[in-house]
Amino acid sequence: MKVIELHESVTASNDRDAEALREEMKRRGTLLINLMSSPGSGKTTLLAQTIRDLQGECSGDAGNRRTNDKLKIAVLEADIDSDVDARRMDRLGAKTIQVHTDGMCHMDAGMTARGLDELGYEGIDLAFLENVGNLICPAEFDTGAGRNVMILSVPEGDDKPLKYPLMFQTSDALVISKIDALPYFDFDMDACVQRAKALHPAIQIFPVSAKTGEGMAAWEEWLRNAVHSWKSGV
Amino acid sequence: MKVIELHESVTASNDRDAEALREEMKRRGTLLINLMSSPGSGKTTLLAQTIRDLQGECSGDAGNRRTNDKLKIAVLEADIDSDVDARRMDRLGAKTIQVHTDGMCHMDAGMTARGLDELGYEGIDLAFLENVGNLICPAEFDTGAGRNVMILSVPEGDDKPLKYPLMFQTSDALVISKIDALPYFDFDMDACVQRAKALHPAIQIFPVSAKTGEGMAAWEEWLRNAVHSWKSGV
Repeated sequence: MKVIELHESVTASNDRDAEALREEMKRRGTLLINLMSSPGSGKTTLLAQTIRDLQGECSGDAGNRRTNDKLKIAVLEADIDSDVDARRMDRLGAKTIQVHTDGMCHMDAGMTARGLDELGYEGIDLAFLENVGNLICPAEFDTGAGRNVMILSVPEGDDKPLKYPLMFQTSDALVISKIDALPYFDFDMDACVQRAKALHPAIQIFPVSAKTGEGMAAWEEWLRNAVHSWKSGV
Repeated sequence: MKVIELHESVTASNDRDAEALREEMKRRGTLLINLMSSPGSGKTTLLAQTIRDLQGECSGDAGNRRTNDKLKIAVLEADIDSDVDARRMDRLGAKTIQVHTDGMCHMDAGMTARGLDELGYEGIDLAFLENVGNLICPAEFDTGAGRNVMILSVPEGDDKPLKYPLMFQTSDALVISKIDALPYFDFDMDACVQRAKALHPAIQIFPVSAKTGEGMAAWEEWLRNAVHSWKSGV
């Protein structure tokens, strides 16, 4: 009983912190995206390619892109340990900070706000929080992000919506990554999409391969539109 | 401060429960194996193939196997939701129970003991606890198992020891699964083995493919030896 009460009070206080952070970021015009996934879903690789494309350094499909769309991007890397991911982002030229969660399995709004303050996000259009690799606990804690995004990789299997429903329910978008590996795994894309939509009918789904570039344009267009909506107060 | 104190007291009480469960299982001659991994590591597929082989129903490499080695096996399936895995195990003829953790991201010793009591394990040689898919929280809670085993799949990447060190430190064995997918992923087996051994020099490592059967014999021999050691009180 004691544990449950404490959990409830922690959650309620976290919800207030999250709402305050969201308001502050809206005022400053910075959209925070909370990226959640299993360990090894390809989150960092997807993020690196997305940053390259949105910063306008990659000219592969420049013809399809609005020319004024170079976004200023920052990254909060949350890990229980290590800084391998942060060093990778740093090399891309994105403003990056590493947050160590000291063994905690998720980020909460207070930790996120402290990370953002340390980083400084004046003039940043889009900030990514790479949450701890975990399909359970991060779904339970509002970080104060403007959008939640889940990444599910093909090798993990199409049954994940059945086993981790809350993650799908709390995510605005689902990126199905590593689709270049589809020929080698028994992954039923239609079944996966159907299961995700049964849990959350409005979820936006983007099958992508950061390796081949397939599907990246649609995902990045969704991000650009989300930034524009955020800044115009929608 | 309050949260930390509570966490410490929960952990200390869990450690006592775990030790009591371990003693009870030793007395009854049942070895409990705690299987931990990310979601989608192929834990259930590996377990299904292992059970088929150890129950002696699969005759593929019968020549290499001791004839008296048919083990009596039971399975505790822990999930925050769903019972897809339990139904799969049930079809194999292993005594199975589904434990719902009600949103909790790990199993503790009390939950494990209740699951085992409900299941009944009289005459069972080997019980598997398929822990919640999560590389963080399960490593922090002693379940009372005789052996901890971590499963890491090739698509997750060879950098996981750097990011989830506690999981490698608390595991007696590491199964590297889905090695049939090695040609399609940048996975450096030597680097992964080296990183795991740097964290835990005594860890036993078994690269396997439940799909092709490669490496399964060595993993199953380790399990048989562990059961024999357990029963003879080593």
